Amino acid sequence: MPSVSSLEELRGRLAAFAAERDWQQFHSPKNLAMALAAESGELLEHFQWLTEEQSAALPEATRDEVALEIADVLLFLVRLADRLGIDPMQAAARKLELNARKYPVDKSRGRSTKYDRL
Amino acid sequence: MPSVSSLEELRGRLAAFAAERDWQQFHSPKNLAMALAAESGELLEHFQWLTEEQSAALPEATRDEVALEIADVLLFLVRLADRLGIDPMQAAARKLELNARKYPVDKSRGRSTKYDRL
Amino acid sequence: MPSVSSLEELRGRLAAFAAERDWQQFHSPKNLAMALAAESGELLEHFQWLTEEQSAALPEATRDEVALEIADVLLFLVRLADRLGIDPMQAAARKLELNARKYPVDKSRGRSTKYDRL
Amino acid sequence: MPSVSSLEELRGRLAAFAAERDWQQFHSPKNLAMALAAESGELLEHFQWLTEEQSAALPEATRDEVALEIADVLLFLVRLADRLGIDPMQAAARKLELNARKYPVDKSRGRSTKYDRL
Repeated sequence: MPSVSSLEELRGRLAAFAAERDWQQFHSPKNLAMALAAESGELLEHFQWLTEEQSAALPEATRDEVALEIADVLLFLVRLADRLGIDPMQAAARKLELNARKYPVDKSRGRSTKYDRL
Repeated sequence: MPSVSSLEELRGRLAAFAAERDWQQFHSPKNLAMALAAESGELLEHFQWLTEEQSAALPEATRDEVALEIADVLLFLVRLADRLGIDPMQAAARKLELNARKYPVDKSRGRSTKYDRL
Repeated sequence: MPSVSSLEELRGRLAAFAAERDWQQFHSPKNLAMALAAESGELLEHFQWLTEEQSAALPEATRDEVALEIADVLLFLVRLADRLGIDPMQAAARKLELNARKYPVDKSRGRSTKYDRL
Repeated sequence: MPSVSSLEELRGRLAAFAAERDWQQFHSPKNLAMALAAESGELLEHFQWLTEEQSAALPEATRDEVALEIADVLLFLVRLADRLGIDPMQAAARKLELNARKYPVDKSRGRSTKYDRL
């Protein structure tokens, strides 16, 4: 089974993939943000008529398709971040900190309320 | 600066974050796919009136906001994959292989045509 | 209460609104498709943590916000169609016909299966 | 050529279409908002690798496909509004008024800046 060990490795492989095909011309951040949103729409399509319970118990074949949609989103996300010079893991770490402050355990337990309405 | 060293670590931290707040009840795959798509829509919003050139030269403040949107997408993506028992890095590796086959260098150089029309 | 009586009237008012502000330069079909998708992401955000039942019984204030998001989607949809020279009502009529053929009553009753898998 | 003369007629036809197929069970506002967002993602896909100029000069076949995606968005939008008891034309009229106040001609001419930053 092929594998990729880190987002940094993935970033490098995607950059090489695009360079070999002379695709940098298409990979503006604007276009990549569109591709990312389009892929997240495809992900959505798998779930739109399912109940929440069904969504947690996908048939094997569907789960497989969903895995590839998740991969598509991840690929465009990493590529977009690369083109903007953003480190996604560092951004994620920063966001985790912000979320911990926005959603203190005692105020947000069992509630889906957005932080600005807590 | 806080850091996260791998998607696996991120997965664990998000699971703990949700468990502490009793948020598993909201985190069905269906709902997480929606949250992911909503965040990718917010990402889109930053770029919608920019030219491609402008999107590649964001002012520092905008780039900072975009970094946090990228983080949001990544967080929901990792959380969604976790709830489905999918390993996003393995899915990405599989997708890289498929893409290499769908887009051979000689046929796709300099062209944005979708593989099924190449 | 102000009113708009047809999509055609809406089209005209949006065209005038953009012309007065010299916004045609921003309103390429590409950009309008992005704005439409971003708005549909905002719509999504209102529903992402609700159960299906809750989504059918929104509090008045939420329903009001959702109505404005629906308006935003409609506005960009009409503007996009205008820029492409597409009549949305005619396209809708054509799609209704296609759907009637793709989803015959006897095969699709009570099933959310996509037409290509019926 | 079949035609539909108003959103109200479209609303009625979609309600009948769903009722005949016993699809009301799938048509919660939550699910319809997902379907709408998924369709707007498909719309996006047509434009993601095009320049703005290309997006304004689509080949006939592409324009035809785009017309059907626009129809899909409109159908789900009308159906969603119906399930929520929202009149989309009235919401659009209200939004036009709000936009006129948020974007005064003199302050917004030739600028894509969001109203809260004007």
